[in-house]
Amino acid sequence: MAGNTFGTLFKITTFGESHGKAIGVIIDGCPAGLKIDERFIQSELDRRKPGQSAIVTQRKEGDKAEILSGVFEGTTTGTPIMMLIQNQDARSKDYSHIATKYRPSHADFTYQEKYGNRDYRGGGRSSARETAARVAAGAIAKLLLVHHGVYVDAYVSQVGELSMPPLPHDIEIDNIEKTMVRCPDLELAEKMITHIKEIKKQGDTIGGAVCAIIQGCPIGLGEPVFDKLHAALGKAMLSINACKGFEYGSGFSGITMRGSEHNDRFFKAGDEIKTTTNHSGGIQGGISNGMPIYFRCAFKPVATIISDQTSVDEDGNEVTVKGKGRHDPCVVPRAVPIVEAMAALVVADFLLLNKVTRV
Amino acid sequence: MAGNTFGTLFKITTFGESHGKAIGVIIDGCPAGLKIDERFIQSELDRRKPGQSAIVTQRKEGDKAEILSGVFEGTTTGTPIMMLIQNQDARSKDYSHIATKYRPSHADFTYQEKYGNRDYRGGGRSSARETAARVAAGAIAKLLLVHHGVYVDAYVSQVGELSMPPLPHDIEIDNIEKTMVRCPDLELAEKMITHIKEIKKQGDTIGGAVCAIIQGCPIGLGEPVFDKLHAALGKAMLSINACKGFEYGSGFSGITMRGSEHNDRFFKAGDEIKTTTNHSGGIQGGISNGMPIYFRCAFKPVATIISDQTSVDEDGNEVTVKGKGRHDPCVVPRAVPIVEAMAALVVADFLLLNKVTRV
Amino acid sequence: MAGNTFGTLFKITTFGESHGKAIGVIIDGCPAGLKIDERFIQSELDRRKPGQSAIVTQRKEGDKAEILSGVFEGTTTGTPIMMLIQNQDARSKDYSHIATKYRPSHADFTYQEKYGNRDYRGGGRSSARETAARVAAGAIAKLLLVHHGVYVDAYVSQVGELSMPPLPHDIEIDNIEKTMVRCPDLELAEKMITHIKEIKKQGDTIGGAVCAIIQGCPIGLGEPVFDKLHAALGKAMLSINACKGFEYGSGFSGITMRGSEHNDRFFKAGDEIKTTTNHSGGIQGGISNGMPIYFRCAFKPVATIISDQTSVDEDGNEVTVKGKGRHDPCVVPRAVPIVEAMAALVVADFLLLNKVTRV
Amino acid sequence: MAGNTFGTLFKITTFGESHGKAIGVIIDGCPAGLKIDERFIQSELDRRKPGQSAIVTQRKEGDKAEILSGVFEGTTTGTPIMMLIQNQDARSKDYSHIATKYRPSHADFTYQEKYGNRDYRGGGRSSARETAARVAAGAIAKLLLVHHGVYVDAYVSQVGELSMPPLPHDIEIDNIEKTMVRCPDLELAEKMITHIKEIKKQGDTIGGAVCAIIQGCPIGLGEPVFDKLHAALGKAMLSINACKGFEYGSGFSGITMRGSEHNDRFFKAGDEIKTTTNHSGGIQGGISNGMPIYFRCAFKPVATIISDQTSVDEDGNEVTVKGKGRHDPCVVPRAVPIVEAMAALVVADFLLLNKVTRV
Repeated sequence: MAGNTFGTLFKITTFGESHGKAIGVIIDGCPAGLKIDERFIQSELDRRKPGQSAIVTQRKEGDKAEILSGVFEGTTTGTPIMMLIQNQDARSKDYSHIATKYRPSHADFTYQEKYGNRDYRGGGRSSARETAARVAAGAIAKLLLVHHGVYVDAYVSQVGELSMPPLPHDIEIDNIEKTMVRCPDLELAEKMITHIKEIKKQGDTIGGAVCAIIQGCPIGLGEPVFDKLHAALGKAMLSINACKGFEYGSGFSGITMRGSEHNDRFFKAGDEIKTTTNHSGGIQGGISNGMPIYFRCAFKPVATIISDQTSVDEDGNEVTVKGKGRHDPCVVPRAVPIVEAMAALVVADFLLLNKVTRV
Repeated sequence: MAGNTFGTLFKITTFGESHGKAIGVIIDGCPAGLKIDERFIQSELDRRKPGQSAIVTQRKEGDKAEILSGVFEGTTTGTPIMMLIQNQDARSKDYSHIATKYRPSHADFTYQEKYGNRDYRGGGRSSARETAARVAAGAIAKLLLVHHGVYVDAYVSQVGELSMPPLPHDIEIDNIEKTMVRCPDLELAEKMITHIKEIKKQGDTIGGAVCAIIQGCPIGLGEPVFDKLHAALGKAMLSINACKGFEYGSGFSGITMRGSEHNDRFFKAGDEIKTTTNHSGGIQGGISNGMPIYFRCAFKPVATIISDQTSVDEDGNEVTVKGKGRHDPCVVPRAVPIVEAMAALVVADFLLLNKVTRV
Repeated sequence: MAGNTFGTLFKITTFGESHGKAIGVIIDGCPAGLKIDERFIQSELDRRKPGQSAIVTQRKEGDKAEILSGVFEGTTTGTPIMMLIQNQDARSKDYSHIATKYRPSHADFTYQEKYGNRDYRGGGRSSARETAARVAAGAIAKLLLVHHGVYVDAYVSQVGELSMPPLPHDIEIDNIEKTMVRCPDLELAEKMITHIKEIKKQGDTIGGAVCAIIQGCPIGLGEPVFDKLHAALGKAMLSINACKGFEYGSGFSGITMRGSEHNDRFFKAGDEIKTTTNHSGGIQGGISNGMPIYFRCAFKPVATIISDQTSVDEDGNEVTVKGKGRHDPCVVPRAVPIVEAMAALVVADFLLLNKVTRV
Repeated sequence: MAGNTFGTLFKITTFGESHGKAIGVIIDGCPAGLKIDERFIQSELDRRKPGQSAIVTQRKEGDKAEILSGVFEGTTTGTPIMMLIQNQDARSKDYSHIATKYRPSHADFTYQEKYGNRDYRGGGRSSARETAARVAAGAIAKLLLVHHGVYVDAYVSQVGELSMPPLPHDIEIDNIEKTMVRCPDLELAEKMITHIKEIKKQGDTIGGAVCAIIQGCPIGLGEPVFDKLHAALGKAMLSINACKGFEYGSGFSGITMRGSEHNDRFFKAGDEIKTTTNHSGGIQGGISNGMPIYFRCAFKPVATIISDQTSVDEDGNEVTVKGKGRHDPCVVPRAVPIVEAMAALVVADFLLLNKVTRV
């Protein structure tokens, strides 16, 4: 209830501060009998970790997840799966210069006001470092999904003004990981990389967008009326640091469309019922209809910049927040595995929930 | 878990089908001692109900909410508040012509596939009629919010191509209810009304957007990391029928901004700490910062149109779904009170959750 | 969270005050496709209702449950099932004489202190009348259980000093409903009836015990570590008005036993694995093992008695609470269907939960 | 939902197997601003740990809890508190001899049937070792309770036939820890110790009872109707390994009492309203009334005994389970801190829930 738990049946609880001893996650509700490939978990973490390329923060963290429970002889036992990630860069750093200052557009002020105290080191709990725990949990959700033939893929569709065309996209999944920016349009990707490097050089940051596509999702996932599949996906994405907006299917472009144009006609394709168009984004009435699910997330520019900004401290005095340190010039390349993880967690949860739908 | 409950402490569960005997809601967790103004609840329902103006469906429903429990001598007792709304038009209608047909972009297909059967009359549980129960519950949430000095207002910002400028808006709250379309820009409102009437005449429908502003929200609402205030708002909005997208603060426009431009600087304003700009939309790190909260929701065009469409039936046969009956040419005027209700429910819930934050 | 919801997947929320307009229940999570026999629901309510025999309160309530949603053409649709029970005796009674007095061992004092106000008429929400809603919901849970071959039966094993021998009992299920006291030992039943009539004549009340047996329960129900099957059963029983204790299997008699004597040895019986004894009460490690589940509940004497008692009022003045009105001299005959209902709700919930245990 | 989480607002999730790498707990929902005394947490763990005296198992575990998150500079921050306890004896032991055998009255059979596989080493997740995590969490709950003037104390009241008189007890709290058996009647304690040693010598085990008293509990804790304070306490106790029964207040002795005798009369004592007797056990209508809360729990004899027992293996073959190894001859001395921890967790949770009761 204090917000660190996500999911109903496939349920995760994360913990840990950016510069505390460790971060991690408990998965409660992962079915028994699932084979766990630890290398896959690690490979997912590696996609998110800092220092992976020239366009992300150069902070060094190994981000090694250790499974402490719930897996026996390589298989889940149905008991809670605990994964621990030690913080390595957390020892000796001195954050006292921002201990009482509120960095603009960070969570310093709101945490202090809400809780009366806070672990100010590196943003504490509000740091995006917490998302490493989500990626570890999401990797296990993905293993469950693959077992059911469901695949979740995310990619960068926009950095600043550099954008792929409007949704839906017909992308080459294999292209996503070919560049450090994770945009499947390889030509655009190069432009994005150049742009981000430029922004970085300026000590500034830039926003971006991440799209995702879920394929192979069985018909029937989603629980009306409040837990519609897209509502759960939306909450999941908006809970990611820096995410400011979510749309699925026709999304905001549906505003200007007419019903006669927007409606997806059903037709029979072999044994299956499909729709001629997919403005519904694979979800109708909050329930998956078997067509590909796709959505788009807006990410704001990272708040940490290399220039001095005016602000106030805890006592209300006007102060200057000095720009320094290493930072992500653009969050979206590293957001890709996080978006996938959260989407996988949502779908895994609804897969389980759907098992109790009928007598 | 089957998705008909919303909220953690201020918690509602709705029930009822569009053409069943009744719909309604239980609120569990409304604090004791709140004065209940039944006329206010009714006035909120009247804003949502069909037949209220020339640009909404002409179906007749009284939408009278009767409180059956939880209120004693005009005051809440802390026990569950049950409100019942009888269905009046539900008796003799014949829906057998669509009993086995899947209307395009409705939930007929997905409900049938998920549950194996369904109440096909008027869409059953998937009908937006369910939102009347939300509005009734939201009215009580609003009474709680007013008690705490919090005000939630929504309005139509776009119908088709007719749009107010991008967010944030500086609107005249009193203008919202002055026109049947609920757009506070009165000149634009007239154009929207004309446009909707035109669309209606064509038997077609059109999408739109609803914006909302929450004022007076205390600092500290929202529970990191998964139950961020905006994530909960996003889920709430996306759970409304026909909603396809959600953004708050800078939203999708944040994609093209730089950090140096996007960051909201803190300053001291009398006893309060405010920000010079409000790209954060009143929420930082998932927690309200005392600035106005604002967001925007995309609504697709209503799926029911007055023209024949091809589709399939339960057996996979190709069929024609005949266009007929009364429908909403554009959902946004009636969506306004629903958006307000859902927002009020979210904020009320977080107000209560925030009471247990500190020792 | 305010305590009016029970269950995780097969989830009920009850509402209503003893002398308000109505009481009722929403079931959210009942699987789709279950045939609903409304006469069975009513027959269960009739077993609980007042006025059914000479040894229960003579208050008249029809206790007719009307299904308002979630059932279409006699079958559940997977949407919330709402059942409403109108209060008939609730109109004109005058309870003003106890409006500010605290009846001994009732909930008047604690409700007033907790909530600051209360519906004092007939005990309001604290009245055992609320359990009618549980019985209605439990009837549907029973229908689900029967579908899975599970049977829940409760019976009176003790009234005051008149007791069946210690557990486990080998009873004739058919005997339970043969007498108005619902003790399957028919000879003892007659003594109990005579005893209760005597107690009633004295204007006093007496305690009793209800036992239950669950047969046909599949192996594997129960969720370690906190939601052990017996822990959930215990909470369910203790939530029934006047219940003061719960034990299962060897229960309190296990205190004086040795491990060598208490341990249940496994053996192969045809294709099944059974235990030679059943001190475990059909539950090991919190999970059903296929043997019959049995437990016992203690009920205190009803607090309403026909004699004057000293007490205090809301202002702390010493007052006399006058003994008057109709009351139950012993709660256990009417508690039998409530115990069954709560047990059925627990088992139905765990049946569903168990469907997601394995990949 | 998979049962490893307890509580609503003060919420714990435990993880870990008896012979896995570690066990531990996340507390989500502990209010910010609570001073954490790590020595107190350790002292509570020491009361539960193996090897502490001659009458408990001689297995060696340091049971050192390390706080990895949620506490900053000695004070809670409102973020999840993670505590990790490494398993020390877990490395090299060989449990292969019971890998496929079902030990009588253990959870081997039910876990295998439910999950299809299991960590058989030392009982895996079903081991009472899991309760160390509860004690660590309970210690923090106790710190919160002390802050509110609430004190929870448990003690052994019975070992086999050696019993204190029926409840309620007027005990000397300071006496509890004076003997290794934790019975405050010091004379009886010596007899219990002698008896347990005798049982141990025989390679057998014996049951017992643990009582608890909660003092200083404010009026108003407990949430009708399903989450009554005693129902939550009952579930909490019954979730402890080997617990077979729970009663509070008059409990099972209430069965033979009359209402005229059982009813607790209210009277004014200074500024407070109290009751002349306390058969209600401090709880009326499921809500604390300010009087001391007391209850009793039955514990069965430990299933591990030093004698050969017949059983079956996973394939249904008849086998002999060899008696060997170190074990607890009687569980109740070590159950005392566990009972306290679970009671503290319940009361802490209801303390927080009660903060949102009134407007």
